[in-house]
Amino acid sequence: MQWSDRYTYYQNIVEEALDSAIPLAVSPWEEGQIPQRLAEAMRYSLLSKGKRIRPVLLLAALDVAGGDLRCGIPFAVAIEMIHAYSLIHDDLPAMDNDMLRRGQPTNHCKFGEWTAILAGDALLTEAFHIMAQSDSPYALKVIKEMAKRAGAYGMVAGQTADLSFEGKLADENMLSYIHRHKTSDLFIASMNAGFMLAGSDDGLIKAAENYAKMLGLAFQITDDLLDVLGSSEEVGKAVGKDDDKLTWTNLKGVEQAKIDAEKAVQKAVDYAQSFDFSDYAFFAPLAQSLLQRVK
Amino acid sequence: MQWSDRYTYYQNIVEEALDSAIPLAVSPWEEGQIPQRLAEAMRYSLLSKGKRIRPVLLLAALDVAGGDLRCGIPFAVAIEMIHAYSLIHDDLPAMDNDMLRRGQPTNHCKFGEWTAILAGDALLTEAFHIMAQSDSPYALKVIKEMAKRAGAYGMVAGQTADLSFEGKLADENMLSYIHRHKTSDLFIASMNAGFMLAGSDDGLIKAAENYAKMLGLAFQITDDLLDVLGSSEEVGKAVGKDDDKLTWTNLKGVEQAKIDAEKAVQKAVDYAQSFDFSDYAFFAPLAQSLLQRVK
Repeated sequence: MQWSDRYTYYQNIVEEALDSAIPLAVSPWEEGQIPQRLAEAMRYSLLSKGKRIRPVLLLAALDVAGGDLRCGIPFAVAIEMIHAYSLIHDDLPAMDNDMLRRGQPTNHCKFGEWTAILAGDALLTEAFHIMAQSDSPYALKVIKEMAKRAGAYGMVAGQTADLSFEGKLADENMLSYIHRHKTSDLFIASMNAGFMLAGSDDGLIKAAENYAKMLGLAFQITDDLLDVLGSSEEVGKAVGKDDDKLTWTNLKGVEQAKIDAEKAVQKAVDYAQSFDFSDYAFFAPLAQSLLQRVK
Repeated sequence: MQWSDRYTYYQNIVEEALDSAIPLAVSPWEEGQIPQRLAEAMRYSLLSKGKRIRPVLLLAALDVAGGDLRCGIPFAVAIEMIHAYSLIHDDLPAMDNDMLRRGQPTNHCKFGEWTAILAGDALLTEAFHIMAQSDSPYALKVIKEMAKRAGAYGMVAGQTADLSFEGKLADENMLSYIHRHKTSDLFIASMNAGFMLAGSDDGLIKAAENYAKMLGLAFQITDDLLDVLGSSEEVGKAVGKDDDKLTWTNLKGVEQAKIDAEKAVQKAVDYAQSFDFSDYAFFAPLAQSLLQRVK
């Protein structure tokens, strides 16, 4: 199987699980169900067509380590819920004030601001609810990992830094801090969760963490490049609006950004050698494919 | 020991644990620590003087069921973090647009809106992070309970209903829905968590749940009464601003609200008979004290 077919295979598992994770209620305020308006807003962002890279990483890591894919599903759903919540809140008027996401109106444009804030809060909480229903012996360990990477020590720290430096001068250290936390931390959580659920040893988890760090960096640099080089139609969100933001392209220029993306991908490929040992490589070509990103 | 001395005893345990739960970093962007600005905003709301009723309920339930108080501390901290996050987000301009909370400027007035949103997100995530570090055999069960009561099926459902009916006509059913989810659900989670951590049987947990439901109802009705009868100085937040909100006093009038509060307290006291069996009663007098609330 081609690596991209395997990607699609995992993606399909994820899509099906996401669809049933947030059921629509039959009436607006049915006891024991999610209020209709809230469920619609949660589903709107969670089910909008995304790459599903985080849950795919989680399932692929679990798979390559010989674990049972079914036991990874609640955690794959949870990481995508955490990602979806972060996008909803990042797009809010008080944050990035974005109108377009994945080619659709952002959540607050569609449902209004207070519903968007609550939909984000609810997706974040539901991520933990769904993980806590797992009967994996490693569930608690994975919940801890997810919370650490998503919260004040991880993704939220990255977003805090990103917004703190908007329109300000900063150096490469600060830019790395932002990328590491805003993007890589959830990639790391995904890979680690997959290997943890398979009961892998710490050496493997360390290699996976290094891979995820580089993959996240390459992902974020190519994201910055798309903002400069892509069209809004292709990318599915507003482009060219990061002018006063601290981005890789603003700091180092387009040519150097391309070189840095290639370097990060090469490092990711190197790290993948130690665990990309199924019949056909998956993690190495996945990293390489980032250099061809158009959205 | 008087019940109020026991309350203070639990409260002191909670205050100490809260203070160390969110450490202040030595520099703004120290790796492995919470960004300074974010930690300050989180601590501002988490440590502002509150009644700590939810973590106190949790510790008291654990205590009366013969559990080890120390094993309850991460969960007591977590429930107060969840409560603090909900207050920060509820106060936002897009939600209740409140300026004053516990006698101080609200989080977004003090730190700005995006920091307040992120501080709420971070407190919610950190609640799960801290619970997942527990070595209690019941940790996963309690995390599930907390997430269920705090999220789309619980507190967030209540807030969704509250905001949906602002300025609109609604009936007592809807008002009960709001109170049950906005207030009682976290009270229930607290009691249940305490009994679960002590390994109590389901019958006891059911009684505790009924008690918490009534306590939450009485708490919310007296809250509505305070909004009408109290002064902003006493109450520590803006009063008289719920005029177009769906409240117990708006729907049923002040006199009936007082009667309903007394009824709810009496029911709570009745339910407490089945578990309030330490040397001196705690849960019954706690419920009765709500009728004397001034803030």
